[in-house]
Amino acid sequence: MNCEIIAIGTELLTPWRQDTNSLFLTEELNALGIVVRYKTIVGDRRLDLVRAIRTAIARTDILIVMGGLGPTEDDLSREAVAEALDLGLRRDGSLVAALSARFAARRTPMTDNNLKQADVIEGAEILPNANGTAPGQWLDTAFEGYRKLVMLIPGPPGECRPLFVEQCIPRLRALIPTRHIARRTLKATMIGESAADSLLAPVYTTYTDVETTILAGNCEIQLQLACAKPTREAAQARADELAGRLEEVLEEYLFASQGETLEQIVLYYLELKQATLAVAESCTGGMLGERITSVSGSSRSFLGGALVYSDALKTAFCDVPPQLIASHGAVSTAVAQAMADGIRRRTSATYGIGITGIAGPSGGTEEKPVGLVYIAVSDAQGTECSENHFRGDRQKVRQWATQKALDMLRRRLMN
Amino acid sequence: MNCEIIAIGTELLTPWRQDTNSLFLTEELNALGIVVRYKTIVGDRRLDLVRAIRTAIARTDILIVMGGLGPTEDDLSREAVAEALDLGLRRDGSLVAALSARFAARRTPMTDNNLKQADVIEGAEILPNANGTAPGQWLDTAFEGYRKLVMLIPGPPGECRPLFVEQCIPRLRALIPTRHIARRTLKATMIGESAADSLLAPVYTTYTDVETTILAGNCEIQLQLACAKPTREAAQARADELAGRLEEVLEEYLFASQGETLEQIVLYYLELKQATLAVAESCTGGMLGERITSVSGSSRSFLGGALVYSDALKTAFCDVPPQLIASHGAVSTAVAQAMADGIRRRTSATYGIGITGIAGPSGGTEEKPVGLVYIAVSDAQGTECSENHFRGDRQKVRQWATQKALDMLRRRLMN
Repeated sequence: MNCEIIAIGTELLTPWRQDTNSLFLTEELNALGIVVRYKTIVGDRRLDLVRAIRTAIARTDILIVMGGLGPTEDDLSREAVAEALDLGLRRDGSLVAALSARFAARRTPMTDNNLKQADVIEGAEILPNANGTAPGQWLDTAFEGYRKLVMLIPGPPGECRPLFVEQCIPRLRALIPTRHIARRTLKATMIGESAADSLLAPVYTTYTDVETTILAGNCEIQLQLACAKPTREAAQARADELAGRLEEVLEEYLFASQGETLEQIVLYYLELKQATLAVAESCTGGMLGERITSVSGSSRSFLGGALVYSDALKTAFCDVPPQLIASHGAVSTAVAQAMADGIRRRTSATYGIGITGIAGPSGGTEEKPVGLVYIAVSDAQGTECSENHFRGDRQKVRQWATQKALDMLRRRLMN
Repeated sequence: MNCEIIAIGTELLTPWRQDTNSLFLTEELNALGIVVRYKTIVGDRRLDLVRAIRTAIARTDILIVMGGLGPTEDDLSREAVAEALDLGLRRDGSLVAALSARFAARRTPMTDNNLKQADVIEGAEILPNANGTAPGQWLDTAFEGYRKLVMLIPGPPGECRPLFVEQCIPRLRALIPTRHIARRTLKATMIGESAADSLLAPVYTTYTDVETTILAGNCEIQLQLACAKPTREAAQARADELAGRLEEVLEEYLFASQGETLEQIVLYYLELKQATLAVAESCTGGMLGERITSVSGSSRSFLGGALVYSDALKTAFCDVPPQLIASHGAVSTAVAQAMADGIRRRTSATYGIGITGIAGPSGGTEEKPVGLVYIAVSDAQGTECSENHFRGDRQKVRQWATQKALDMLRRRLMN
């Protein structure tokens, strides 16, 4: 079966807003074996909307109309679908009562325009919306002799996504022959996309029943595997088999075999070893700490650290000798090592990380260009330091620096 | 005039890829006074493509067909536009020669499929592509008695955007009466979208010649003003006039009147006052430092600080007395104030910020729930502290905490 998604809202036709719900919906639909054939974005104009709906219903089996369900004049989806399919609208008494009760509970007067949210297309089923006032609608109908499914769902992501999963997916599943999809997400870092693909393609191209997608971004490579089979076990076994072979090929570049983030993996190994971590950040200014503490429960292994943007603080918080900075410069192997070692000793952590570099766009010299970053990892056995030349803008250099720091720690933890 | 953008590519119908070129094109088109009425996304299937083009050409004046111009079997735009408009294709000799020369220069054999990139739709003008092998095409034609402009442009952003700006915009400008657009972006924070709109709407709705868009997100409100007039001066004067009135209405909620980020504004005032800043972060774990140091040149005012995730580090780096933590708890006004004051003294900064809270999802209690964050700002005159209850997930609570901290400092700097 195939599907068209119509996203409604004049704001989605500006340079600033984009429909992102459809990516989520597409993933859910694909998991059922439903292919998205078209996506249409249209503004809050009744005529445009009716035209878009008529075009869509003629060319696909399933039509998802997203947005335009609120109480304002601009919210035209109910009327437009009814008009396009030549169906009536009825005002539903139970929805009117629910709306009134909702406003009464908030002690807010209900303006009349809210009542249009109680209008239901002839023959449609109401899809309760736990997160907002406007319910969705499900219409199982015919158009020019063909069976068509039409769903009206709200536009705000916090309403659209749960409603689709809770209300639409079970109804679709009941209509569609059972297929089970198994997915795996592998992640690798510090290897380029084309280098990874040339290693991986000879393997995954032989698994024609597993859909393999390689995505690069955020300093890492993601491999998305999806396999559909009549039974969950068969699908999982096949996806796992390919995942296992790809993991072998990726060797130490692979850091996650179940979609985990690099920070999660590092925290997992720290906890396994009952080890603790402290960081000393100069050019990354807090980005490494931010990434680590984005994981709930990170306080079990992460003690904290210091943002040593100024030379004085490198000494005050990490005991970096001022003469070391004077002789080697703040951006140097010696200072990165002293930072890593110093923060580890000051906090009594098992591991210390030190990062110092030139994020740009200014501050670079011929000898020490923008993108040069020294990263050191220290423990009681010693300190290792890498010299890196990262490309890209300030943000990119900082992202690569935190990625490399986490990866160095990961590799040390795994040895 | 109005326009439809058709983005072509099966990858744009997956859960992982999205058409972003259209945002760029929309901004350029809007600047000429051209409204985007529809956006359609369609895969690399000839029939789907022909249908989408026929639908589009019937409902808009200008049609932009993006993608599908490469050499592979999947690249069907030329054939589909020709078929939809019932026009022929001719193989252009000069394009064939240019392709051959390009491959010869690279010493790569040219496979036959490359030749389709030399196919030109009957009546179309060739749009040279400086960044790739496939040229664009410009067709000024008629459909059912109406004049229609059809552009075929390549999909890769590095080809699409320069080609559109260099080849299409001048041709469109020549056909459209000159208009100049002036834009302003105002930003406010710590005020809700609907509260802001109820203050602002009575003002901006009286300026019907300035398009005003309110966007909420990332803990702030953006007001985008755009005004089109025959002269640049008239457009700018009118946009500035409305901006001035909206600024008055927003009072202290307004932080940027030219689109600056909150971190840029805070750093601007710090530098103006020749003041310095240090931070002590607990639950935000580095996010505040990361935001500040994302601005190039921040080292002129930002000294650094401490990530005091553990209680021991609150004492070690910020001199927070252990008995204060024991009696009030780590998440308390007293500890936030001691952190702000302590980091300021330890670093000899003009201002110190302390943040301590419960970002969740675990760690909350009835007395101290998830989302409770104390934020203190300290200078030589004293320390103020706010108690905040932020909503949302861990990431959102942390974002709000850093936003509030920056905003507290901004307000203090402005007094």
